Amino acid sequence: MPYVNIKITDEIVTHEQKQELITGVTELLVSVLNKNPATTVVVIDEVPTENWGINGSTVAKLR
Amino acid sequence: MPYVNIKITDEIVTHEQKQELITGVTELLVSVLNKNPATTVVVIDEVPTENWGINGSTVAKLR
Amino acid sequence: MPYVNIKITDEIVTHEQKQELITGVTELLVSVLNKNPATTVVVIDEVPTENWGINGSTVAKLR
Amino acid sequence: MPYVNIKITDEIVTHEQKQELITGVTELLVSVLNKNPATTVVVIDEVPTENWGINGSTVAKLR
Amino acid sequence: MPYVNIKITDEIVTHEQKQELITGVTELLVSVLNKNPATTVVVIDEVPTENWGINGSTVAKLR
Amino acid sequence: MPYVNIKITDEIVTHEQKQELITGVTELLVSVLNKNPATTVVVIDEVPTENWGINGSTVAKLR
Repeated sequence: MPYVNIKITDEIVTHEQKQELITGVTELLVSVLNKNPATTVVVIDEVPTENWGINGSTVAKLR
Repeated sequence: MPYVNIKITDEIVTHEQKQELITGVTELLVSVLNKNPATTVVVIDEVPTENWGINGSTVAKLR
Repeated sequence: MPYVNIKITDEIVTHEQKQELITGVTELLVSVLNKNPATTVVVIDEVPTENWGINGSTVAKLR
Repeated sequence: MPYVNIKITDEIVTHEQKQELITGVTELLVSVLNKNPATTVVVIDEVPTENWGINGSTVAKLR
Repeated sequence: MPYVNIKITDEIVTHEQKQELITGVTELLVSVLNKNPATTVVVIDEVPTENWGINGSTVAKLR
Repeated sequence: MPYVNIKITDEIVTHEQKQELITGVTELLVSVLNKNPATTVVVIDEVPTENWGINGSTVAKLR
């Protein structure tokens, strides 16, 4: 029943990589907390680099 | 003053359906908790099926 | 599979009222979008009034 | 180390304005709470007006 | 109508400091984007240091 | 720079388990997406069972 939200910058993440993130997080919750994978939800948000700030600057500017 | 965030997979949700969700949630908060609708905010996020995971798999793969 | 997060101020909400919110939101998603209730997750966050701001002021100050 | 999420309607916000929001929020956390700007993350979500509800209506309808 | 969520570690933040954060963020959204302060919502979440991770470690361990 | 939020029911999760979740998620982001662990933030929210709904019911009622 856990819900996991992963926010990353939108910089060409493949379907395969998303699948790996989702499998990896789900397995982690099963192994550490014995959660039920059937109701474990993972949502990935890809954020444009001009909408992500770190150290007071957009990532778009840092790249 | 409540804030409600609804996350669903991005699979052709019409403006009319979004309107129904927003009206329904707002009325629910008014009727159950007597909240003020004027400051009740509802945000709907439509998530691509390859970014949504359940049971360790992307929804894109399950469809 | 939808995920809904409801944020409200922490001002004595009963278990019964939380149950009504959860039932109401779930039924809304079933009726409007034909979602599966078995994987519809609703999470309620109760936020202390001094941590909730509106119009530039904490709610604690407004009450 | 703070994480800040700003949700606004998607109505032509320039890169410059996003930069101002990110700088402003980061400086606020440094000045009020003495946080380290190097690990202060700000994420801006721009939400389509038909996905944003207030007072039981989509913003798209109100505009 | 913006919604802002500030997540910080739970390490003795005073009501006065929360008030400053809320006022500061609200003024920023008014000045940069001309938003209406009356419907600008700010929610502060104070997260226990053992629930906050950075660089693969809980903050509780780092302190 | 990723930000990960893990929401689970509040049912006696130890500091050690939280540490394992944080390490596991951080290593996953490093291995799959080559992210920098130093700016990878993980926040765990423990939600009371009466505030978590699934299948139209609070978890408190289901337990």
